[in-house]
Amino acid sequence: MNELIQQLLRGERRAAARMISLVENDDAHKNELMSRIYPNTGSAYIIGITGSPGAGKSSLTDKLVAEIRQLGLKVAIIAVDPTSPFTGGAILGDRIRMQSHALDSEVFIRSMGTRGSLGGLSHATNEAVKVLDAFDKDIIVIETVGVGQSELDIMHAADTTLVVLTPGAGDAIQTIKAGIMEIADIFVVNKADLDGADKVKAETEAMLDMRTASDWRPPVMPVVSLTGSGIKDLWGKITEHRELLEKTGRLDEIRKARLREEVRDILEHEIKKYVWNTVEASGEMDAILEKVANRELDPYTAAKNILAERVKLK
Amino acid sequence: MNELIQQLLRGERRAAARMISLVENDDAHKNELMSRIYPNTGSAYIIGITGSPGAGKSSLTDKLVAEIRQLGLKVAIIAVDPTSPFTGGAILGDRIRMQSHALDSEVFIRSMGTRGSLGGLSHATNEAVKVLDAFDKDIIVIETVGVGQSELDIMHAADTTLVVLTPGAGDAIQTIKAGIMEIADIFVVNKADLDGADKVKAETEAMLDMRTASDWRPPVMPVVSLTGSGIKDLWGKITEHRELLEKTGRLDEIRKARLREEVRDILEHEIKKYVWNTVEASGEMDAILEKVANRELDPYTAAKNILAERVKLK
Repeated sequence: MNELIQQLLRGERRAAARMISLVENDDAHKNELMSRIYPNTGSAYIIGITGSPGAGKSSLTDKLVAEIRQLGLKVAIIAVDPTSPFTGGAILGDRIRMQSHALDSEVFIRSMGTRGSLGGLSHATNEAVKVLDAFDKDIIVIETVGVGQSELDIMHAADTTLVVLTPGAGDAIQTIKAGIMEIADIFVVNKADLDGADKVKAETEAMLDMRTASDWRPPVMPVVSLTGSGIKDLWGKITEHRELLEKTGRLDEIRKARLREEVRDILEHEIKKYVWNTVEASGEMDAILEKVANRELDPYTAAKNILAERVKLK
Repeated sequence: MNELIQQLLRGERRAAARMISLVENDDAHKNELMSRIYPNTGSAYIIGITGSPGAGKSSLTDKLVAEIRQLGLKVAIIAVDPTSPFTGGAILGDRIRMQSHALDSEVFIRSMGTRGSLGGLSHATNEAVKVLDAFDKDIIVIETVGVGQSELDIMHAADTTLVVLTPGAGDAIQTIKAGIMEIADIFVVNKADLDGADKVKAETEAMLDMRTASDWRPPVMPVVSLTGSGIKDLWGKITEHRELLEKTGRLDEIRKARLREEVRDILEHEIKKYVWNTVEASGEMDAILEKVANRELDPYTAAKNILAERVKLK
């Protein structure tokens, strides 16, 4: 374990990859590892990218990473693929993604799926971010497919969140629906060379007009991720947002709030794991479920009984 | 409380609406209420409808409900809107939805948002289903917007799950991405009058060809939800699927597996609630977080300390 940590802190890719696998598999030694690398975290800046399927987030990330690399910054990408809870494993593998950066040793790419159900994907993503932060990356990009609740949760880990829209498909309206309006620090109108891009921009600006004023109004940035057009300006806005957060002390506040969530998250995760494993191992579950299925016992009373038996709350 | 239960079992709409609100707000009396109505549940058949935003799920549900009502069955609709975790409350309110059924007293319509974060939306949806089951509805339709992980979780409550695709927008491929392939019992190609509908159907069939054979191959049903074309055939397939599940005993199996998840879910929910309330109320959290923020303490050790102090695992 000492060796793995040393390797990680020395910047060995294989160690980073291995630690993220331990995180994903909720390995028995994981908490201790995470605990030990924690002092080395806190310096990376986290960028979140989300939006509807098909909005071109992968190619946007690709171009953004090229921009970041030109500035000499080290970058890691976590691509979160909500895959089947049944088959496990990400369908969009690391291998077929981001091929243009495949040979750049300062770009670390990792896909994460919903493999383990315990703790959930946002828990695992959070921990992977910490691993890559300790791994001495300057920028960590988290990219999620889709705009469901888990994607919103994942985006809480980001310092600056980009919401990607595209012309057509009623994206702007769907964005309100999905409630991601509030998490966007920057809107990106991708495929801005297509018809309807102006309309999406106008609609988004109109939605922003309805918000109460603050010192940061999310800009709406047109880009064409396939050609790279607009990427430099987008990076400029990300930097501007970061500087504002740092200057106003809000970055510290955000991160402190996130730590609170994290402690809570870890706590819940540990208790859940313990209770469930114990109950499953005891074999009493089947008898209980039989009664519940026959409606002799209701699930609430069943849970209450298990809790009373297994966990003593002080 | 007795009165509320009596009113619910007597079929008073207001009682059902109020109980779902108690569920959403995670009311202190909720568990006892749920526990008391449990013996009256188990007779409703649950249909899940999911798909990408903009696939026309609402109008499909609308037409399907009309079909169900013609058969004299009582139906409830739970429309799950993944709304903002910040503002709370569903943007697509009940009022603007399903206006064609607004005056039919045997159709109960409810939107649910991600109001409370504790326990999550799938927990609350599950409980709302139970309330409506006790409320003596024959069919409960759960409709979700989006295809993220929480939507997948919600769909676990359904006996028959419909995945709605549309021509264009690369829907079929996005479906694999989002991992909902495995949860589909029936694929619906909506807007089947548009160009490309045949292509979506063909692509979906091709994907199905790659699956291992079983006694149910998900049919791919073309419909036009705006006109109602294809709805009768779709209902026929739903009925066919239900009959298969009942005949083979698989419905019982599915429901028993679901109960296991439910007991686990309730258990976890209770633990979370307790731990968080206790820790927050104790006021020690701020001191701990200060240390964590200064990197004097790591979140894992912090959680371990809280756990040791507050919870005894037997």
